[in-house]
Amino acid sequence: MIVLGPNRYGKAETRVVRITRNGDAHRLKDLNVSTSLSGAMDDVHLTGDNSAVLTTDAQKNTVYAFARKHGIGAIEDFALLLARHFVDSQPSVHRARVAIDEYAWERNAGSGHSFLRSGGEVRTCVAHYDGSAAWTVCGLRDLVVLNTTNSEFRGFVKDAYTTLPETGDRILATAVDASWRHTATPPDGTGAAGEEAPTDWDKSYESARQALLAAFAGTYSRSLQQTLYAMGARVLADCPEICEVRLSLPNRHHFLVDLAPFGLDNPDEVYLAADRPYGLIEGTVLRDDAPPAGPAWE
Amino acid sequence: MIVLGPNRYGKAETRVVRITRNGDAHRLKDLNVSTSLSGAMDDVHLTGDNSAVLTTDAQKNTVYAFARKHGIGAIEDFALLLARHFVDSQPSVHRARVAIDEYAWERNAGSGHSFLRSGGEVRTCVAHYDGSAAWTVCGLRDLVVLNTTNSEFRGFVKDAYTTLPETGDRILATAVDASWRHTATPPDGTGAAGEEAPTDWDKSYESARQALLAAFAGTYSRSLQQTLYAMGARVLADCPEICEVRLSLPNRHHFLVDLAPFGLDNPDEVYLAADRPYGLIEGTVLRDDAPPAGPAWE
Amino acid sequence: MIVLGPNRYGKAETRVVRITRNGDAHRLKDLNVSTSLSGAMDDVHLTGDNSAVLTTDAQKNTVYAFARKHGIGAIEDFALLLARHFVDSQPSVHRARVAIDEYAWERNAGSGHSFLRSGGEVRTCVAHYDGSAAWTVCGLRDLVVLNTTNSEFRGFVKDAYTTLPETGDRILATAVDASWRHTATPPDGTGAAGEEAPTDWDKSYESARQALLAAFAGTYSRSLQQTLYAMGARVLADCPEICEVRLSLPNRHHFLVDLAPFGLDNPDEVYLAADRPYGLIEGTVLRDDAPPAGPAWE
Amino acid sequence: MIVLGPNRYGKAETRVVRITRNGDAHRLKDLNVSTSLSGAMDDVHLTGDNSAVLTTDAQKNTVYAFARKHGIGAIEDFALLLARHFVDSQPSVHRARVAIDEYAWERNAGSGHSFLRSGGEVRTCVAHYDGSAAWTVCGLRDLVVLNTTNSEFRGFVKDAYTTLPETGDRILATAVDASWRHTATPPDGTGAAGEEAPTDWDKSYESARQALLAAFAGTYSRSLQQTLYAMGARVLADCPEICEVRLSLPNRHHFLVDLAPFGLDNPDEVYLAADRPYGLIEGTVLRDDAPPAGPAWE
Repeated sequence: MIVLGPNRYGKAETRVVRITRNGDAHRLKDLNVSTSLSGAMDDVHLTGDNSAVLTTDAQKNTVYAFARKHGIGAIEDFALLLARHFVDSQPSVHRARVAIDEYAWERNAGSGHSFLRSGGEVRTCVAHYDGSAAWTVCGLRDLVVLNTTNSEFRGFVKDAYTTLPETGDRILATAVDASWRHTATPPDGTGAAGEEAPTDWDKSYESARQALLAAFAGTYSRSLQQTLYAMGARVLADCPEICEVRLSLPNRHHFLVDLAPFGLDNPDEVYLAADRPYGLIEGTVLRDDAPPAGPAWE
Repeated sequence: MIVLGPNRYGKAETRVVRITRNGDAHRLKDLNVSTSLSGAMDDVHLTGDNSAVLTTDAQKNTVYAFARKHGIGAIEDFALLLARHFVDSQPSVHRARVAIDEYAWERNAGSGHSFLRSGGEVRTCVAHYDGSAAWTVCGLRDLVVLNTTNSEFRGFVKDAYTTLPETGDRILATAVDASWRHTATPPDGTGAAGEEAPTDWDKSYESARQALLAAFAGTYSRSLQQTLYAMGARVLADCPEICEVRLSLPNRHHFLVDLAPFGLDNPDEVYLAADRPYGLIEGTVLRDDAPPAGPAWE
Repeated sequence: MIVLGPNRYGKAETRVVRITRNGDAHRLKDLNVSTSLSGAMDDVHLTGDNSAVLTTDAQKNTVYAFARKHGIGAIEDFALLLARHFVDSQPSVHRARVAIDEYAWERNAGSGHSFLRSGGEVRTCVAHYDGSAAWTVCGLRDLVVLNTTNSEFRGFVKDAYTTLPETGDRILATAVDASWRHTATPPDGTGAAGEEAPTDWDKSYESARQALLAAFAGTYSRSLQQTLYAMGARVLADCPEICEVRLSLPNRHHFLVDLAPFGLDNPDEVYLAADRPYGLIEGTVLRDDAPPAGPAWE
Repeated sequence: MIVLGPNRYGKAETRVVRITRNGDAHRLKDLNVSTSLSGAMDDVHLTGDNSAVLTTDAQKNTVYAFARKHGIGAIEDFALLLARHFVDSQPSVHRARVAIDEYAWERNAGSGHSFLRSGGEVRTCVAHYDGSAAWTVCGLRDLVVLNTTNSEFRGFVKDAYTTLPETGDRILATAVDASWRHTATPPDGTGAAGEEAPTDWDKSYESARQALLAAFAGTYSRSLQQTLYAMGARVLADCPEICEVRLSLPNRHHFLVDLAPFGLDNPDEVYLAADRPYGLIEGTVLRDDAPPAGPAWE
């Protein structure tokens, strides 16, 4: 018999910009919000009965309305607020997932109202809520880093298809895509009496980001796997509130160009930055007593 | 204590084009191959000891060498061949995942040697092998379809943030991203005595694709969820060798433009094709007796 | 003294889908329209006085309203209609440029109301109108073609930086980006008495496209430059209404993989499809009596 | 008769990374170089005779070899060096165009050998050389800026298709794409006796970039055209060595969301960041005594 399996639906990539105008020094939050809901959705799939469906259009409207009503602080708080709202207000919705990307801006020319988009990495978060518990994964992507030395690659397997020479000094470059799971079920952000104190998400993010950068710079690398582990372990060492880190590191190969045909040496100076193919190193670093992840990574 | 969790590494996006020159009517296969391996890889992460690491460069070389030695028929067979090779030849490699995208070409101007890239959807597959069993997921993505009628959307929840009017006739458009799991452990493709007969992957793919298209065209849609279920169910009905279908369907909104300010009606004729945000409907349709998926979807 | 030079402004990428519902066999046009206007626009630049500015929002509205009022036939006619409207209705607008991309769809599963996006090339046009004369450039882009043989590359300059070996047989592949200029000032498409008969743009487009494909397939190529010239010349030979063709052909390199390290030969069978860098061949082929281009290529 | 018109050919997107290892504080230049040549190229087009063709592969090799031999300082100097080399060393090459994009990196974690890609804008240049004279255009793209206030839009034409309300305060955002032409024929960079002193390209770039940012922040804008002119004029005012500025400014619309259906006001706080369509404002600001541009903008 044919049956319905896991499913979810929502509105992806709602782009919201929120300005706060306290006097002349304005502030700016620039987000891309994706919501998805699941629950008692058999009928809509099997018969097209929409009576359990909160429309994706309403989900989008909620994002904009909540930006006005509640403001936007840390994206994790905003994601949790939305996730809780959808589950708590709709009987047919049993679980919500809210993913947010945040684009950074800095002040332009010292102006209070003019901004310059920072480029570089995108800050990310994913919040889940199921009516009783919440889970939060934070992270970043497109953080491009490169070491000009302190990277070797030797002692690997040589099979019949291995032609790569060993190297004692190479460029190591990657675009970091990292996500990390917080240990505690996050509070609901309302600061109600008896609640756990809200996490300082911005401070935690900054610590994790600095840990990634410092570990990348400071690790003498025998392989990108070793660097990956060092980066994850450093986040856990520096951030006690985090219990698990997942990293996906493309190896952005920089090949030393052979200039001998032109009568030139190339003492680790001129490199070709390659596009494809690329190595791809993926791994998880976690505490051995990390609580179960539940739906956090879905 | 900080520990290493799940991990894998490999070479992503090795682009291989294989020409077969039987007389004047050449044939062309155009693939993008990504391999990844896992196994006894603790040391490389923890100490940078690479003695268990088959380099990603060697993985790439193997793709090219196997394209020459074995030719390339169905991408599923090529993926399985590679996955088995890596696990069977390297003691430290306990599991392999090989993902392949195939780009379609057609003959140009009746020529035997000139080709025209077809555009449209990309055919995909992912094969896993763990030393004893294999799993295969086939699929496609970027199959863009649109119905000009036979789609309504009514009877949904109206909460405080719902402003969407009900509609009895709308455009329904999506870019189909579908993957389907085959029931049987696939044979190793060598046709050795006593082996199960190899699957006819190309025929199975064509049936599944036609089922998706026919169900999209033929379903009177009360929601995209209903259409999703109909598409998955049709694949299972038409393809007994398939036990599970996963679909991700962005709702590419086409909004009827309000022309009243210009003194014009708009009897379902002129639409704005929107980019973001978009609805995103994801779901699984499967047989109730489908065997466990194992690592198939990883 | 600092002065204002050439300028224009408009609305880019208005996405319009137009359905024609003649009985059950619907028809679908899917366009991306960019308009830009220039004229008496000194004040808006110098003082911010907007009294000469037709807003880009109104330009967008006009695209939608005209799609309803006039329907959409050939994109060239629609582009000319819009260009004429802006110049003829606004005293401050002295010149209009309208560029349209068209995405092709085909019928899905024999249905009258279900469509499948064709992928492959995008059809393009650019129309200019200055109040008295009009110019039309038609074209296509992203037409990807490949020859498996009949391409050599020999006899080139060997300077101190040349290491490329000569080859008697290589893959030749490119993504054709072609534009062609029509000789006659196009009529205004209204079919008014005394007017030149409207050009059959669709037929002309189909002829030019077929000429490009046939010349690519049929030319024994000693260089991509030679192929470029053959393609342009074929369009002019087959389409008397066209006086000039401009082509931009990236050389999508396919490198024969050296399999000797693995004890394998490679008799022109296995290729690496490279991304960057790529050759880029650009050139114009025209009639020696082509009329002046005016603003056609701007 | 069918004839060959203007043409050029070259190697696009050669990716070169150059490390300078002075002690422990390494330096890094990351470029994307595109060369194209033209000259006595009739034969290659008409008959496939390649005897005048310096291969695009050799052009790529030259980029790498020159990076080693000459190092890479300002991209303008490197572009001019390459352009002069191709024309001066090959009799068949009469003109060279070299375009370079530069990606910025900053130090990571205070390390001398670890870098972080800056994101944000890309610095660009295009150099032309014809055997006697040289032309240089410098610029940047993808510099994304936003003002939260000091932008109005009023007093525009109201035609039958105008529905846009006037506004006294809106968000103004754009991604600056700017290029500016230097007045003097640049010297050849070798510092030979009797030569003009080399331009300090880096200082000039920094001044022009700051002028663009300051003018964007400091202009009370009645239209994006006015802002465009102010930006160009500021570059010319601050940089006497520059004679012409060309700007292309997409109007990245931020629409104030109507929250009235939810019982909320929206006092210029919550905006929808739209993708398409977008306004596109293009214009030139120049000195009235600017020398002829020659091929500078080709």
